[in-house]
Amino acid sequence: MIAVLKQGTTPQQTQYLVNWLKNMGMDVHISEGKEVTILGLIGDTSRVDIELLNSLEIVSTVKRISEPFKQANRKFHPKDTVVEIGNVRIGGGHFAMIAGPCSVESLEQIIEVATAVKKSGADILRGGAFKPRTSPYAFQGLKDEGIRLLLEAKKATGLPIITEIMNIRNLDLFEEVDIIQVGARNMQNFDLLQELGKTKKPILLKRGLANTLQELLMSAEYIMSEGNENIILCERGIRTYETYTRNTLDLSAVPVLHELTHLPVVVDPSHATGRATLVPSMAAAAAAAGADGIMVEVHNNPACALCDGAQSLTPEQFDKVNRHVRQIREVLL
Amino acid sequence: MIAVLKQGTTPQQTQYLVNWLKNMGMDVHISEGKEVTILGLIGDTSRVDIELLNSLEIVSTVKRISEPFKQANRKFHPKDTVVEIGNVRIGGGHFAMIAGPCSVESLEQIIEVATAVKKSGADILRGGAFKPRTSPYAFQGLKDEGIRLLLEAKKATGLPIITEIMNIRNLDLFEEVDIIQVGARNMQNFDLLQELGKTKKPILLKRGLANTLQELLMSAEYIMSEGNENIILCERGIRTYETYTRNTLDLSAVPVLHELTHLPVVVDPSHATGRATLVPSMAAAAAAAGADGIMVEVHNNPACALCDGAQSLTPEQFDKVNRHVRQIREVLL
Amino acid sequence: MIAVLKQGTTPQQTQYLVNWLKNMGMDVHISEGKEVTILGLIGDTSRVDIELLNSLEIVSTVKRISEPFKQANRKFHPKDTVVEIGNVRIGGGHFAMIAGPCSVESLEQIIEVATAVKKSGADILRGGAFKPRTSPYAFQGLKDEGIRLLLEAKKATGLPIITEIMNIRNLDLFEEVDIIQVGARNMQNFDLLQELGKTKKPILLKRGLANTLQELLMSAEYIMSEGNENIILCERGIRTYETYTRNTLDLSAVPVLHELTHLPVVVDPSHATGRATLVPSMAAAAAAAGADGIMVEVHNNPACALCDGAQSLTPEQFDKVNRHVRQIREVLL
Amino acid sequence: MIAVLKQGTTPQQTQYLVNWLKNMGMDVHISEGKEVTILGLIGDTSRVDIELLNSLEIVSTVKRISEPFKQANRKFHPKDTVVEIGNVRIGGGHFAMIAGPCSVESLEQIIEVATAVKKSGADILRGGAFKPRTSPYAFQGLKDEGIRLLLEAKKATGLPIITEIMNIRNLDLFEEVDIIQVGARNMQNFDLLQELGKTKKPILLKRGLANTLQELLMSAEYIMSEGNENIILCERGIRTYETYTRNTLDLSAVPVLHELTHLPVVVDPSHATGRATLVPSMAAAAAAAGADGIMVEVHNNPACALCDGAQSLTPEQFDKVNRHVRQIREVLL
Repeated sequence: MIAVLKQGTTPQQTQYLVNWLKNMGMDVHISEGKEVTILGLIGDTSRVDIELLNSLEIVSTVKRISEPFKQANRKFHPKDTVVEIGNVRIGGGHFAMIAGPCSVESLEQIIEVATAVKKSGADILRGGAFKPRTSPYAFQGLKDEGIRLLLEAKKATGLPIITEIMNIRNLDLFEEVDIIQVGARNMQNFDLLQELGKTKKPILLKRGLANTLQELLMSAEYIMSEGNENIILCERGIRTYETYTRNTLDLSAVPVLHELTHLPVVVDPSHATGRATLVPSMAAAAAAAGADGIMVEVHNNPACALCDGAQSLTPEQFDKVNRHVRQIREVLL
Repeated sequence: MIAVLKQGTTPQQTQYLVNWLKNMGMDVHISEGKEVTILGLIGDTSRVDIELLNSLEIVSTVKRISEPFKQANRKFHPKDTVVEIGNVRIGGGHFAMIAGPCSVESLEQIIEVATAVKKSGADILRGGAFKPRTSPYAFQGLKDEGIRLLLEAKKATGLPIITEIMNIRNLDLFEEVDIIQVGARNMQNFDLLQELGKTKKPILLKRGLANTLQELLMSAEYIMSEGNENIILCERGIRTYETYTRNTLDLSAVPVLHELTHLPVVVDPSHATGRATLVPSMAAAAAAAGADGIMVEVHNNPACALCDGAQSLTPEQFDKVNRHVRQIREVLL
Repeated sequence: MIAVLKQGTTPQQTQYLVNWLKNMGMDVHISEGKEVTILGLIGDTSRVDIELLNSLEIVSTVKRISEPFKQANRKFHPKDTVVEIGNVRIGGGHFAMIAGPCSVESLEQIIEVATAVKKSGADILRGGAFKPRTSPYAFQGLKDEGIRLLLEAKKATGLPIITEIMNIRNLDLFEEVDIIQVGARNMQNFDLLQELGKTKKPILLKRGLANTLQELLMSAEYIMSEGNENIILCERGIRTYETYTRNTLDLSAVPVLHELTHLPVVVDPSHATGRATLVPSMAAAAAAAGADGIMVEVHNNPACALCDGAQSLTPEQFDKVNRHVRQIREVLL
Repeated sequence: MIAVLKQGTTPQQTQYLVNWLKNMGMDVHISEGKEVTILGLIGDTSRVDIELLNSLEIVSTVKRISEPFKQANRKFHPKDTVVEIGNVRIGGGHFAMIAGPCSVESLEQIIEVATAVKKSGADILRGGAFKPRTSPYAFQGLKDEGIRLLLEAKKATGLPIITEIMNIRNLDLFEEVDIIQVGARNMQNFDLLQELGKTKKPILLKRGLANTLQELLMSAEYIMSEGNENIILCERGIRTYETYTRNTLDLSAVPVLHELTHLPVVVDPSHATGRATLVPSMAAAAAAAGADGIMVEVHNNPACALCDGAQSLTPEQFDKVNRHVRQIREVLL
């Protein structure tokens, strides 16, 4: 970490600051130039509050040289993390296709979708049981019953399952769930992250609606610092001024995260775009960008013409998406 | 709610949709034009999933006419809500100045700041005990000990206190806290909101970093729908591309929220700007915009030249800010 | 266009508004419901000022049903536009790879890069002659001399050339330029667009830093409304809160624009990301998203270790990118 | 400027870079630490391309210590610039109220509004003659006739006038215009800025829709570098994800700009919010934030109930706004 002091800083002020930093365990290297004095901080700078330092009257600017995340940092763990879920692997060259309905609605529905996506090559079944909804009056999911139905579908198809947790008090219900999803709205629910860090469950951590990639990695760090390293990062669109799509899918997050961290990265084009017509293109693009997995919504219900909706693909559409995604991966090998 | 159907929709499809809406309890008024068919939905449309409806193949656009929030809606409750905290009132023409340190650090510190801000005219004492921090390695606050110290300061000065809750499991610790703050990162922690709705405590609900005003009101609705109507909304800056300030303070939120809701609105210029030099201007501007309260950070520690930092005012600066704010309010009466 | 009137609107007010709209050439269809009155406007609603209408005291909401762009609209021109530049075609299944240096620096440089990218399969040569720079003190390009050098490179390699115009007064200099680029900062320089509309030159129109896709199409409409239909749209990243990449590449723009318009869409991953290490992934992703062309920066200068910079690929890197892009396109045929 | 080199940089590479920087006229101070080498660049660093430097393979990060704007920089010109327009002054404690209609529509209209706003205390008359419109089919203003009518209103009332220029080719028409406005869309039309820099006219430069404050100052620098120092900066709202207001008025821009530059700063709450009901609060807030002027839209037409629209105040509303603004300024003296 580099701190540049303002012109006019007195030697006493500089010394005061240097002592304060040394008390925090930093080694401080002072370089006095004609116009500015530069302090180089060496040691575990992840403990230094950069905003506080920056705000001191005598400090002009502060710049981190090392990233504030450690366990998630590729510099210290160059090898890709491979998250294993039964026979399925994500990361380090292993790719997983995650598919399923937005919400679990009934046993018939979830079994039907699970069977269809398995046939088309899905590796993992997704389905919402606890649903975070903007409105308290909207359907909030089947909750524990939803998890029970997912487990039935797992039994019927052999597909591992992923579903979202909203409250750490429900952790017991997730005992047989294969991957626990932390939704975008909970990416900085630090208490929840810490509790999940105490489990050994694979965690799929979604990027928050307006969070930077560094903040995403700091949230992964919260989980890892408690001992759980089975983390899958998920890009799912960020909030911008553009209103045509629900969110703006930030696919550059994939190669950036691959540079910064050893953790696997998956992409959710369904929630990002909010429109089924855009999902095939964006799933293909995610594969081309190097994603370690893709998570798409698939519904059944061919009888209901009305339900051909929103962001969900039909099983037929999913079949084609899956094929393209795998072929694109082969091109890039 | 208005749903415009696409050209080429068949009468059967229209009928199918109308029946589906009627099953949800809607009254549907059909208007067939030359080019488009328009459905007017009447009834409790807060239960209709606008995204789902919008995504149906035969639907061109959907537009809410009534807002999806009801209990927070000024249309149904034209009179301003006044939140009472002991002798202090917020809303309906009553203004409260909330001041105190970012974090509670020691008994001496909190007593000293509380005494100073009380003398300068503060109505309520703020202080962080549980601190949400981006990094797991950063100081997370004194926690329960911090609340204990705040209660000491309350006893010493008579000022009611406000502090942030991060986890519903800590609710017991907040029994004597006067106002419970929900931080920006938890604005859509719906489980937390619902639990707080079951208490009668005044809640200060901060706008999330990238949340719309409508989403803020929907989160208030989560609390209100459980029975707690003592809610104070707080604008504290939103995330934009501008990096000079930590966030962009959206002061138009004040008159907009006053149009949309009867709940009081306070402004936090300290966290929004992240710079003490900007706080006096932005506090004055918040008062001029019609805020029902202002929350500013004030620190003591005149002996420590290093600590003149970040977003906190000295007691002297706060004294002047408080005076200006009160005078501006008088101009606008 | 649908206008929903507020409750309490008097019949006289309604009539007044209806007459006003009819005077503008609209046909108005009135639908009176129990709670609201809805006006359906039929005719050339592109002439109606939606913001003004929305702001009238008696109007609750206004919603366009048809898009405000006409000549660029796929609804009225379902067939893809194919822009022809000599033997090169863009759009309608034809793909073009555009490559070259950020700035034209010397004859030697531009010939060397042009020869290299041609060998690797580029279809069109790019190079900046007039450079829009944030600072008046920064290098502004070789200007007319830069165009002269590009024309030399065109003569030497046979590659058509594209370069940016910043001022309509320089139009004469672009007589032999094959494609005129309008930069992001000039996307809403309407006078410039109109003048370019009077030429027959192919125009590559870049999306502005914070412009919506609809605004991009309205700017295309400015050019088309003057008679020039040879327009190529270009996604080059939008400004968001994320600072790791220079901009956020919005690849969903590709399928969205393909839905909305018949004009070809190219992607510029170099300017969007600002980092050479991200360009190969994002170029591949752009191809997978269905782009009709990709524009990348390539520099030469293998001797200068310092220059391996920023967003530019070496010829070797470009060679691989070009190969991957073409193979991905084959997968998606 | 500080450049931090990556670990592993060889002495030759360092020397190569140092020589390159010295050739650009920089004085370079090298500080070698255990882990990193830091270069301190001294001299006219406004000529160094920070993005290029940052992108070099051996460079880890680059940080400006001095701002890239010089003539607009308060550090080098601590005294406030006062722009004089006849008897009206803006900046350095002088405040100006600018008011008038969105567009000039007729002689009768502009005279009527001008007379009304003068009576209520406006100092300068605004009115659009050339109107930048998103759609080529929308009304583009009365153009030269509009300027002629403004000059008639100036003659009738004595108020100086301000109106927008869109194309440097129209400069002759602005000979008697007192202040030339550069609109948000043209903030980075660098050729236009440079031409205006060659005049001595006061220029009101609006912040672009998604431009940072530093970019605004760099655009002012473009004008100043050509010799024109009569510049008034204008905050008019930035584009964010919030859709309730047309843009998000960034009032913290006022104190920030006052810190960074000696140029006066005015605020346009009408365009920022797009809603007349929000203008009084935001005008008062702008005054409280320390603005040197406020620009509001005022229309006449009391006969037309429909026209009570959008973002324009009636003369009566303006009268009250003007009074409040002046009183708030007195509080803050």
